[in-house]
Amino acid sequence: MDEAKRARHFASDNNSGICPEVWAALAEANTGHVSGYGDDPWNEKAKQLVRDLFETDCKVFFVYNGTAANSLAIASMCDSYQSVIAFDYAHVVTDECNAPGFFAPGVKMHPISGVNGKLLPDVIDRAARSRRDVHASMSRVVGTVYTPDELAGISKAARDAGLYVHMDGARFANAVATLGVKPREISWEMGVDVLSLGGTKNGLAGGEAVVFFNENLPQNFSYRCKQSGQLASKMRFLAAQWIGLLRDGAWLRNAKNANGAAALLETQLRGVPGVRILYPRQANAVFVDMPRRVLDGLHERGWHFYTDVGPGGARLMCSWDSTADDVAAFVRDVVDLSK
Amino acid sequence: MDEAKRARHFASDNNSGICPEVWAALAEANTGHVSGYGDDPWNEKAKQLVRDLFETDCKVFFVYNGTAANSLAIASMCDSYQSVIAFDYAHVVTDECNAPGFFAPGVKMHPISGVNGKLLPDVIDRAARSRRDVHASMSRVVGTVYTPDELAGISKAARDAGLYVHMDGARFANAVATLGVKPREISWEMGVDVLSLGGTKNGLAGGEAVVFFNENLPQNFSYRCKQSGQLASKMRFLAAQWIGLLRDGAWLRNAKNANGAAALLETQLRGVPGVRILYPRQANAVFVDMPRRVLDGLHERGWHFYTDVGPGGARLMCSWDSTADDVAAFVRDVVDLSK
Amino acid sequence: MDEAKRARHFASDNNSGICPEVWAALAEANTGHVSGYGDDPWNEKAKQLVRDLFETDCKVFFVYNGTAANSLAIASMCDSYQSVIAFDYAHVVTDECNAPGFFAPGVKMHPISGVNGKLLPDVIDRAARSRRDVHASMSRVVGTVYTPDELAGISKAARDAGLYVHMDGARFANAVATLGVKPREISWEMGVDVLSLGGTKNGLAGGEAVVFFNENLPQNFSYRCKQSGQLASKMRFLAAQWIGLLRDGAWLRNAKNANGAAALLETQLRGVPGVRILYPRQANAVFVDMPRRVLDGLHERGWHFYTDVGPGGARLMCSWDSTADDVAAFVRDVVDLSK
Amino acid sequence: MDEAKRARHFASDNNSGICPEVWAALAEANTGHVSGYGDDPWNEKAKQLVRDLFETDCKVFFVYNGTAANSLAIASMCDSYQSVIAFDYAHVVTDECNAPGFFAPGVKMHPISGVNGKLLPDVIDRAARSRRDVHASMSRVVGTVYTPDELAGISKAARDAGLYVHMDGARFANAVATLGVKPREISWEMGVDVLSLGGTKNGLAGGEAVVFFNENLPQNFSYRCKQSGQLASKMRFLAAQWIGLLRDGAWLRNAKNANGAAALLETQLRGVPGVRILYPRQANAVFVDMPRRVLDGLHERGWHFYTDVGPGGARLMCSWDSTADDVAAFVRDVVDLSK
Repeated sequence: MDEAKRARHFASDNNSGICPEVWAALAEANTGHVSGYGDDPWNEKAKQLVRDLFETDCKVFFVYNGTAANSLAIASMCDSYQSVIAFDYAHVVTDECNAPGFFAPGVKMHPISGVNGKLLPDVIDRAARSRRDVHASMSRVVGTVYTPDELAGISKAARDAGLYVHMDGARFANAVATLGVKPREISWEMGVDVLSLGGTKNGLAGGEAVVFFNENLPQNFSYRCKQSGQLASKMRFLAAQWIGLLRDGAWLRNAKNANGAAALLETQLRGVPGVRILYPRQANAVFVDMPRRVLDGLHERGWHFYTDVGPGGARLMCSWDSTADDVAAFVRDVVDLSK
Repeated sequence: MDEAKRARHFASDNNSGICPEVWAALAEANTGHVSGYGDDPWNEKAKQLVRDLFETDCKVFFVYNGTAANSLAIASMCDSYQSVIAFDYAHVVTDECNAPGFFAPGVKMHPISGVNGKLLPDVIDRAARSRRDVHASMSRVVGTVYTPDELAGISKAARDAGLYVHMDGARFANAVATLGVKPREISWEMGVDVLSLGGTKNGLAGGEAVVFFNENLPQNFSYRCKQSGQLASKMRFLAAQWIGLLRDGAWLRNAKNANGAAALLETQLRGVPGVRILYPRQANAVFVDMPRRVLDGLHERGWHFYTDVGPGGARLMCSWDSTADDVAAFVRDVVDLSK
Repeated sequence: MDEAKRARHFASDNNSGICPEVWAALAEANTGHVSGYGDDPWNEKAKQLVRDLFETDCKVFFVYNGTAANSLAIASMCDSYQSVIAFDYAHVVTDECNAPGFFAPGVKMHPISGVNGKLLPDVIDRAARSRRDVHASMSRVVGTVYTPDELAGISKAARDAGLYVHMDGARFANAVATLGVKPREISWEMGVDVLSLGGTKNGLAGGEAVVFFNENLPQNFSYRCKQSGQLASKMRFLAAQWIGLLRDGAWLRNAKNANGAAALLETQLRGVPGVRILYPRQANAVFVDMPRRVLDGLHERGWHFYTDVGPGGARLMCSWDSTADDVAAFVRDVVDLSK
Repeated sequence: MDEAKRARHFASDNNSGICPEVWAALAEANTGHVSGYGDDPWNEKAKQLVRDLFETDCKVFFVYNGTAANSLAIASMCDSYQSVIAFDYAHVVTDECNAPGFFAPGVKMHPISGVNGKLLPDVIDRAARSRRDVHASMSRVVGTVYTPDELAGISKAARDAGLYVHMDGARFANAVATLGVKPREISWEMGVDVLSLGGTKNGLAGGEAVVFFNENLPQNFSYRCKQSGQLASKMRFLAAQWIGLLRDGAWLRNAKNANGAAALLETQLRGVPGVRILYPRQANAVFVDMPRRVLDGLHERGWHFYTDVGPGGARLMCSWDSTADDVAAFVRDVVDLSK
């Protein structure tokens, strides 16, 4: 494959475009006039599809992106003097320019170290026990991701400590695909109160859904969306994308494709001398160590990917549109440069 | 025209869809991988087109909607103890669920009465003179709209009082079309420091641009966008829409079409007995009084439009896609119901 | 009385010092070590005295000043997208540099015109009915003052509309003294949910109490106090002042003295040619019109008072320490200058 | 000494009362009427005394407590998307219920590990270098305490990285006394831009001063004080306390007394078998390890002190009013219980 024609990379699944099913749904929605601000049939349909996906009567709100989804979910659960316990390397802690503290002024992210990047139930116990009257923020929410084996323990500890459980599901579909479970099995059945359901990395032009499973949550969430600039007047174009993604299973196909490409990449890279797989593959991401000259050579040949994951390491992300040819071309260059 | 086939209404220009030029640009942008968060050629191109539009080296930021555009612009100019002088019926005062106070905590909207809905220069003088040390918020910004004859006076008064001028340009293109001026003639040349440039009502799926003309503004605005959930990872799909709108003049054609349909509507309604035009047509809006039974009849026949603009009055908004046939069909029903 | 010896003025009751009973209580409290942050016998005692004062089991929190008392009370009742209906000339609207919007980011003060400075029940009805989905802030609280004849009507309207009632009681003691009622008769018995109980103008060095009568209010208020910088480490010195004020009735004596001085002032000024009482005396305030040269002359003779209450008008405030001699000296100067 | 008569403890220097010099100044200020909100001779005098103390023309603002002093200082330097680098165990990080995020919504405390509780210059370098566009908060301020040997290095690193330096000086006087330096030598001469100058622990009833040495700081700080509920109407009673503390050196005498008592305590405890001094004495604090039964016995005998500083450890704080008799009585009980 010639570099000039290289269409896809391994930098991030958010570098990809809109998948065909979503594009078609957008086209369908682009006809005539409908009422603004979500009071339209596309939103009704899309919300029903999310409820169908989770097989429960959850409340669904479409927002523009993950920053907003996570931060609004947190704001809906926390008063200003409360805090969110999260991994110290969680995206919402490190990569959101403290959006939670902006959407929920005064609310503190409380980063906790884990073992192998996993938040352990006993740290939640400890955080709850360590409440020191008014001098420290009051724990209110535990933020987590989809590690189903730990999820039950975390949810139980959270429940025991009177905390809500929020899941950042930017790559929820990839998790479902990897684990071979049903969406409900790693969400509300495991005690998740609210989920930020990712769409952008799964084939949308852009958009996430905030999904509340806890029936006591939230209060007046649509006001929060409006006030924070997350309510579109032409809301149908957010909703329609979800219809395209969900109505005939594109969400899972896309996730499986991304995961499959990553599995292929891992397998093929394992055979290359000097290349070392750093961690077990996580859904659609492969973390790999290669000699500096190989990494530099790949960049010189026009491949995009990130190397800020440790000394010598690279993160290779596959996407809904990654192809076996993409993988083959990349591995060919790795082999070539490793000689 | 049969009701079942009725595609367009007169409720709001945000009830319309995506115009063909914007759709085409979205399709062009939906190819392969590009870097996320705005570091892509589509953003570069779109920002250049905005600069070309205003014939100056302004700073351009694309955000999701007008709530965010107005509120972020205000946040970038105000400290917590400052205030924004605005019409008491300005959209940002009445219709944003106090988004400015959310994006800029502590900042106060300071609504001022005007004459015929117009903010007069001397009230700005007075507001500046009335500063009472620390007990009232310090005036910092004047919010205004595109009424060019008053704009110069307002800007001068603002400048004299040390205030910034922010223009809410949700329908900036319609104003340009109505007034037959160049964009610069009702923006930076008239002392506007920052403009919320509307795209949604002008044919986008959704999106506005915050345009800073004052070279001292803003500081680190991209951080504000990120933190407030207004930075898309697939930013190209916001930018591409602007390319479609601006590159060959669709923005002005769309606005002229909307204004022209409103002019047609006004003209044709003037001839109907019992119908009274309430105010001079403003760009693409016609405010009209009709007997209650006519209004009710129109709603029964499936026409969407708002009647909350005073006793008996209706607001009829035309859009980029309003047609002469739409107008004719509507007027026909008015005539029929007025018999 | 010689100007150099003039100790008291009529500018504001917050220009006065600490009353003897409060001073004595401070001295008593200044002995040895006690636990910080309110966990001490002085706080226990002071809170009990407030409960005794209102003859109910209210929750009591001492804060530094009225800005904080009002704003924290509002913050405890409102989410970011909600609003507080208040007089358009209420202190909390005009004189707090938008502190409510700082303590409760996003919350909007919704100023309403009244008749003769009084908020009418039907405007509350109307505000509640005018809710327009998410585009305007959701009404949540009605702010009011102690006008008992209207209070019942306001509280009922608020209750019917699902709103809380907050009373700004900066001069609560003066109101009680003027009306000859018991504290409960113009607070919880009239439907007040939370009261900012003023102490500073009543003889304290500084301090107000937030008193919650509604048993569902508030949640975790002590956290709000801490986070907002309203929790003193040497909290006993806030509490002790209240003990001094309340334990033997100084609060009411002080208020009666201020009101009495104002009554005397009003009576004596009525007899002076060219002097006109503008409004009926309100507790310890007299609003009076005099010729400009008289006003100027008084200022030249060293009297402090405010004249920004309309053309020619002056506001004369009496205090807990105002004396008949002070009144006589002032009136003498008015008479002399009016010749 | 009989327990019933025990007046002073070793729990915290904020458990002490008002020192005689401050009490006398309060009494002097409690005479007649003066203008409110700080426009009075007491504030003028007190601010001059602070300027004299630091031998420079700094800007001085009196606030109620340290929570507010630190948080307002941070708010005056940071926009919402910025952050404050601080020790991970700094008071402002751990003990303020995230007050900085309340006073400055969106602003993030960025806790950094140090060596022996000291922030090293190179971590500031690293924090500045690690800026990752808009996805992480932008570093803006370094928070530090008075460790003069490191202070120069920290300030230089901060300056090189374009950061401000804020010093939390809750026990500034104790540091000056311990180090035997002049106030300027551990503040502006070492590059400190703004200091929270503690008064409460130094003998005031309550109050701290925010002292800006950087002439470009702050903008409109008095508005921030007002809006955040830190402006007293009877401001003279905050200012007068500082006059009492500063005019004849009580601040340094008080600090020396506290430090001296701690030194005495350390010396006398060193001789007791089974007692171990944990860290070198820091100003007026002694950290000590004793057998659990001794600690329990001391508590049973009515001594107040904290033991949450590690296994077996106790923190013993001396105060401006600690006496040699207090120390002797405590040590006697330790000896007795250690038998």
